[in-house]
Parts: sequence; C-alpha cells; structure tokens
Amino acid sequence: MSNTPAAPDSAVRAYIEERRAAFLGDLTEWLRIPSVSADPDRADDVRRSAEWLAGKLSATGFPEVEVWATPGAPAVFAYWPSGDPEAPTVLVYGHHDVQPAAREDGWHTEPFEPVEKDGRLYARGAADDKGQVFFHTLGVRAHLAATGRTAPAVNLKLLIEGEEESGSPHFPALVAARADRLACDVAVVSDTGMWSEDTPTVCTGMRGLTDCQIDLYGPGQDIHSGSFGGAVPNPATEAARLAAALHDEDRRVALPGFYDGVVELDERERKLFAELPFDEDAWLRTAHSGAALGEAGYTTLERVWARPTAEVNGIGGGYQGPGGKTVVPSSAQLKLSFRLVAGQDAEKVQQSVREWVARSLPDGIRHEITFWGATRPCLTPLDHPALRAVVRSMERAFGQRVRFTREGGSGPAADLQDVLGAPVLFLGISVPSDGWHAPNEKVELDLLMKGVETAAYLWGDLAEHWSAPTRPSTTP
Amino acid sequence: MSNTPAAPDSAVRAYIEERRAAFLGDLTEWLRIPSVSADPDRADDVRRSAEWLAGKLSATGFPEVEVWATPGAPAVFAYWPSGDPEAPTVLVYGHHDVQPAAREDGWHTEPFEPVEKDGRLYARGAADDKGQVFFHTLGVRAHLAATGRTAPAVNLKLLIEGEEESGSPHFPALVAARADRLACDVAVVSDTGMWSEDTPTVCTGMRGLTDCQIDLYGPGQDIHSGSFGGAVPNPATEAARLAAALHDEDRRVALPGFYDGVVELDERERKLFAELPFDEDAWLRTAHSGAALGEAGYTTLERVWARPTAEVNGIGGGYQGPGGKTVVPSSAQLKLSFRLVAGQDAEKVQQSVREWVARSLPDGIRHEITFWGATRPCLTPLDHPALRAVVRSMERAFGQRVRFTREGGSGPAADLQDVLGAPVLFLGISVPSDGWHAPNEKVELDLLMKGVETAAYLWGDLAEHWSAPTRPSTTP
Repeated sequence: MSNTPAAPDSAVRAYIEERRAAFLGDLTEWLRIPSVSADPDRADDVRRSAEWLAGKLSATGFPEVEVWATPGAPAVFAYWPSGDPEAPTVLVYGHHDVQPAAREDGWHTEPFEPVEKDGRLYARGAADDKGQVFFHTLGVRAHLAATGRTAPAVNLKLLIEGEEESGSPHFPALVAARADRLACDVAVVSDTGMWSEDTPTVCTGMRGLTDCQIDLYGPGQDIHSGSFGGAVPNPATEAARLAAALHDEDRRVALPGFYDGVVELDERERKLFAELPFDEDAWLRTAHSGAALGEAGYTTLERVWARPTAEVNGIGGGYQGPGGKTVVPSSAQLKLSFRLVAGQDAEKVQQSVREWVARSLPDGIRHEITFWGATRPCLTPLDHPALRAVVRSMERAFGQRVRFTREGGSGPAADLQDVLGAPVLFLGISVPSDGWHAPNEKVELDLLMKGVETAAYLWGDLAEHWSAPTRPSTTP
Repeated sequence: MSNTPAAPDSAVRAYIEERRAAFLGDLTEWLRIPSVSADPDRADDVRRSAEWLAGKLSATGFPEVEVWATPGAPAVFAYWPSGDPEAPTVLVYGHHDVQPAAREDGWHTEPFEPVEKDGRLYARGAADDKGQVFFHTLGVRAHLAATGRTAPAVNLKLLIEGEEESGSPHFPALVAARADRLACDVAVVSDTGMWSEDTPTVCTGMRGLTDCQIDLYGPGQDIHSGSFGGAVPNPATEAARLAAALHDEDRRVALPGFYDGVVELDERERKLFAELPFDEDAWLRTAHSGAALGEAGYTTLERVWARPTAEVNGIGGGYQGPGGKTVVPSSAQLKLSFRLVAGQDAEKVQQSVREWVARSLPDGIRHEITFWGATRPCLTPLDHPALRAVVRSMERAFGQRVRFTREGGSGPAADLQDVLGAPVLFLGISVPSDGWHAPNEKVELDLLMKGVETAAYLWGDLAEHWSAPTRPSTTP
C-alpha cells in the first residue's frame, strides 16, 4: 500500500516530548470529571466536562470555541481557520462523555482517579474517548511549532459530543441543525482503535445498523395447550419461524433483497485482511464463544467487518419461569438487528422486513413492527487521498507499515457522512486490551503520544496532498 | 351407536329427588372448605377436606374408608365390596382439592361461600371436582335403594386425590405403592365434562403429554453484535431454528419418528366427531384466537382430540426489555410440550427429541434438555363393554342419545391405566360454561342430578354386561 514511511520530524518529536508531562497532567484532570451521560445524577459533571474541554481548546489556540446545548448533554465545537482559501476543511469527531464505572465492578483503582502505572494511564474514558480527543490538542500545537505556522494547514473543526455513550440521541438533529457550521471536506473520527500495539492500522469503514422489535399476538390470553394446542396459531412458534427463516442453510441472510446493492469486498482488500495476524482462537476467547459460524464463503474478519448480517438480539414469548407450563402463549416478541454495509439502504431493508413479516405470518397472528432507527454504513475507498494522508502520517509516527481494518459496529460517524456529505476517516490509537466499557479501562501512553504525533503530521500532509473532487488536484 | 335409551327407573328418580336438598346441603358444606392444594397456607384445609369426605363416605355406607397420607396432600380411599365373587371391580377417580380463587379475581360472590342461583351452584370446586366426586355418594345409595341390594353390584372403590390441581406430584407413586389395594377391572374418572347441556357425551380418551425445557448456551456472556454478530453461533437463533423445525409446512410435527405407532382415527369415529354440533367460530372465541391452524388434513376437533402435537410453550433468550440492545445473547431457552395419542411412546419421543436436538445444533452451542415428565395417552375403544355400560347409563338418565368426545388434555387418569392395567372411562357431567379454573365456577344442578342418576344405573349395568377379557362373557 505504501512505501517506506517518511522519517519522523525531530522538531515535532522534541516539542511533544517536552510537553508530555503537562499534556498528561491536563488529561488526568479531565479524566477526574465523571462525565457519565447515562446517569442523570452526573448531568452536571457532563456539563463540567464540556466546559473544561472548551476552556482547554481555547487555551490550545482555537479562536472559536462554543458549547452547544442539546436537549440532553452539551457538545463542544471548536474552529481554527487555516487562513488559506485553498485549504481543505477537516472536522474531528469525538466525545467527552464516558461509560458508567464503579470500583465494585472490578476496578483495581477508583475509575475517576486516574493512575499511571507501567506506561499506562488507568481511568474511565482514558481510551474511550477522552484520551483520543485530547491528543488533537497537543497534535495541532506540535504541527504549528514544527511548521512555524500560526494557524493549521487545514481549516480545523472539532465536534466533541456529550451523549455518545447513551446512543447519541440528539446527535443527528444537532448535526443537521448546525450543518453550515460543521461543513467540511472530510471528517476524522477519533473514537476507534487499532489492531494491536504491534500492528498499527487504520479503519476504513463501519457497518450500518437498523434494528427492530416485532411483536406477535395470537390468542387473547395464554390458553391450554391440551385443549387448543395444535389447532390455533402459536405466536411463539411463529416468532421462531421468522427468526429461523432469517438465514438459509449457508447462514446467508434470507430476507428478500437483503444483498441488493452490497459493495462486495474486492480481492485487494480481502488479501490485506488476510495478511493481518489474526488468531481465531484468541478472537473466539474475546467473543466468549466456542466456535465460529457465519456466512459461507467468508472468513471471520470478513464476516464481521464487511458482510451484512442479521442477528436475533432477543426472543421471548410464553412461559419462561421454572418448570413447565402447558400453554399456547398469547404473544411473542423478536428483537432483530441488521448490520449493513456500503451499498445497502436501511429504508429498503426495513421495507423488506415489513413485507416479509406480513407475508410470513398465518391468519390469527397479528403483528406490530417497530424500527428503533437506522445508522448508515460508511466506507472510505483505500485510495481516497485523505485516507492516504492518514496512513502516511501514522506510518511516519509509528515508523512502520500501517494496515487496514474495518469496524463491525456502527456509530454516529455515519451521521456526519450523511448530513455533511463528507467522507469519514478513522484515526484511533486505542488497542483491544484497553477495556472499553469494561473495568480498568486504560490507554497505552506510548500509543497516545503516537496519536499526538500522527495528528501533528496529518494536517500538513492533508493540505499538501488534498485533491478535493471539485477543485484541481494540488499534487501530481 | 345405541338404540333408544332404556326408560328411567322411577324408584331411582324418586329416591334421588327426595334426597336432593340434603345432598346439595352436604356438597355446599364441603365446598366451604378451601382445599387449595397449591397454597401452602391451605394445607390444613386440604387435610380437612379429606377428613370431611372420608366421614361422608363412611356415612354413605362404604365399609372401608381410609385417608392416605402422601408427602403432600392426603388422598381418600374407600372400598365397598360387592359380595359377588363374579362382580367386576371399579375404581372411581376424582380429586378433592381445588384451584386457587379469590373474590378480587372477578368472582361475583365469595368463592368459598356457595351460592345457589337460577339452578346453578356457584363455588370454587362446584364442577372441578367436588360436585362430580360427590354425585357418586348419592348415586350408589340410589343404586342400592332401587335394587334392594345391601352392597353395590360391583366391587366399588374410590380414590379421591388431594393434589390434582397442583400437578399430582405424588399420585403416580401413591398408585404404584397401593396398586394391590387399587386393583380393578376398570377405572371411572369423574373429572371431565360433556359437550354441552344439550349434547351429553362421554369422553373416550385423553392425550398423553411429555414436556421439556431445552437450554442452549452460546457465548459465555452477551456479546456485541457489531463486533461478533454474524460470525459466532447465536443461541437465540438456534432456539428459533429448533422451534421452527418442529413443524413442516403442513404443520405436521417434523420430529423424526414422531408419528410411529400412532393409532389413526377410523372413519367411524371421524364421522361421529363430525356429527357433533361444532361451531368453530364459538370455539375460536373460547380459544381467544382469531383463526384455526393445525395439521393439514384434519378438522379442529380431530386436531385437539386425536392427533399428536408439538407446542412451543415458552421461548426466551437475549434482551427482552424495552427498546433495542444489539447483543448476541449468551443463552436461550425453549419449553416444548408434546401431546401424545394412543400408540405413541413417551420415552421414544423423548429419545427422538434428544437425538434431534443434538444433531441440529452447530458447534459452539452447548445444550441441556430436561424432561418434566410423561403422561401416557389413554383411549377406550368405542365397543369396550364398560364404555357401552357408561353410555347406556347416561342415555337412560338423560333420555337421549349420548355421543363421543375425546379430551385434548392429559391427566393422572393415565397413571391408573398404566399401573393398574385397567381401561379408563370418563364419566363427567360438567359443561364448558362451568368455568373450571376461572372466576364464578359453577355446576348445573340438573346435570349434577343426572350424574347421580347415571351413577345409580351404572353399577348394575356394568355388572350385568361385564365381560372381562379373562373370564367368560356374562352376556350373549
């Protein structure tokens, strides 16, 4: 993919090294604020976290810093114009809220009293996502110091939301309402991770998601299976028949039209995936699973990163207490989620589900379908100029080849792509052992500083190599 | 099936009429005892009910009356030998415990303060089963009075258990332990009903039952469906696939070997069923169901009475709370019940389920199957001499043709058949509107007195026409 990494910039490294202690001191201060968006009692802390960040971004030099109220927790917006009319505009996305955490969950130390140990900083939010937001502050300062600029080489915007850990309920509306202010050529999401400490990677896409609940209603009340069973439709049976019909024998999704438009993996990306040092046994341990199973013809990584899936998240109906109860249940429920890849349309999938369910159920079973929402997939082509800039900057910082991953999950990044019409890139330095959402979350300090260094290189590289679709290429 | 009913015996009728008030007074006294076997706080009442019945059976004339302790609630046994060495031995089965009931469940009157109104007696247990047990007391007295006998024409045994409404947990062991004392040529179960007030019927069989719980275990904990979904087996999906595979497209049970040995309905019985004034719309209202659905090629009555079925009583797995949660669940559970008909073997069905489940599940899904038990089906051929005697006696009492039904449910009657090796007959006068297990349970007093009268005719008829397999026929 790339040639030998460019040599590191000694001015950047020296600048960062000199300020490392102060940078970590500031991050530690931020991590002490328990900005748990899911906990109503922490609403003040989430606001305090936003204010703290806003102050720090002003101190960093961003001339425009705003705290944006939402019906929930506030987001922080910052803007530092380049001054160059040709410069691309970049929007960095992250979040300042964190998952809940309590000592008794299994933390070895207080989750909101950061502890540095063996080159790691332990605290809730250290990796997800405060650490990864914060590396941009020192990064942009190092960029300025090393280049002698007084403003970044790109028009740099930051949008750091406060409800990501609560499902970003107000994020799409916020982005839509502030679309003018957020307008950008490319979005950089710093809320993901790398393959491992030894294998730096950049993520090129996330899957989309649409999920629903299907309620099935049969008899008006639970009825006696001796008196009526086998002669009236059973909603639990019908729920099972729907769930079972989601996949064929090859574990392909059998929903009509589901694969329409799917952007298939090309051989180049399959080959790159296959080169990753993937240990399926280790992966299965992470999955707490005894075996791999999925769509025939694809590897495990391909299945979770690049293939659309249907999953039964929950099923319920009839008697679930101890022992037996010989009833035909009156109702049953299915919770399904569909992960989507580029080329799929969530609304079409929803429509297909609606038609398929209506067509599949016998007389005597009434149903309701509720879709909880839709998050679009996003995927950046491997040769996108902005992606190339991210890769070059990471390779320069890490001194080694950077490989590609995708992310099987789904995130609010897609809202940026949708509303702003900008491609989404992922720049994250977290590693799987960082323990997102788990006790003893930490960030690897050496990797965190590589994040700072990558950010320090990125804006210059991006500006230099930027070739927006609508303007003439600035590089050969 | 039968010719014109024999004329009623005026002596029997006069005897019964004279004692009707006292009989109902006694029954009312018994119904005041809240013998709710499911309620530990009512254990004393259940014991009191047994003692009360034992006293009443002694007063009726049974020379041998015993209260049999069990690890749970006591049963009552009574024996009145005929004195005729050729006489057949009949064991009447019923139960003296009742379902729970509370005024606030929707009762118009106190459930344990019987109220007579418009020819009906309202009380918990009026139909299920105290009324139907109790008609045998006046019945046997009327038999003696009208025939001038001092002992019944058959060796008459009664076994009235105290835990039927709690699933008869100790009944099989009790029957096995007392098999010598309970030995009989035929068992008469008075714990069922008739088609309707206008259509007296006799039930010729009940379905058997075996039910189980299948626990499926996948990932060691709920895992993220974005990171892992579509690449590891999902126990909720596998539970659904099992449940869905229980039936084919014709809604026949698809479990291998399930229909092996099934005694098929013959054309004669199908014709008799078809003659019943069955109103499917009314039946669907009783079922609280909007449509009928079952095994192709059979009517609704055939499906519930004479065909084996598989039913999903409960299914559960994963997230069942409000909203969505994108997990691959760690476990799922299925509760299945199989209704069995004559010729099927519960143990074979269980073995087939075990093999089918083991064969159906993919690697990575561990399972456990627990069978709760097995109740055998029972079926008396339409031309069985004892069944003919029941029909003749009912027709004489009711003054009209008696038709045949079966019962889709399953009951402890099968234990009598199994352990004692005796055919089981059903003599019940309850009607669907009696509200078994429901608020405002009642018994129709006219029908109750028809029960008394039938019992008064039955013992003489049975003795007269008895033709046991092992002894020469006593009738041409």
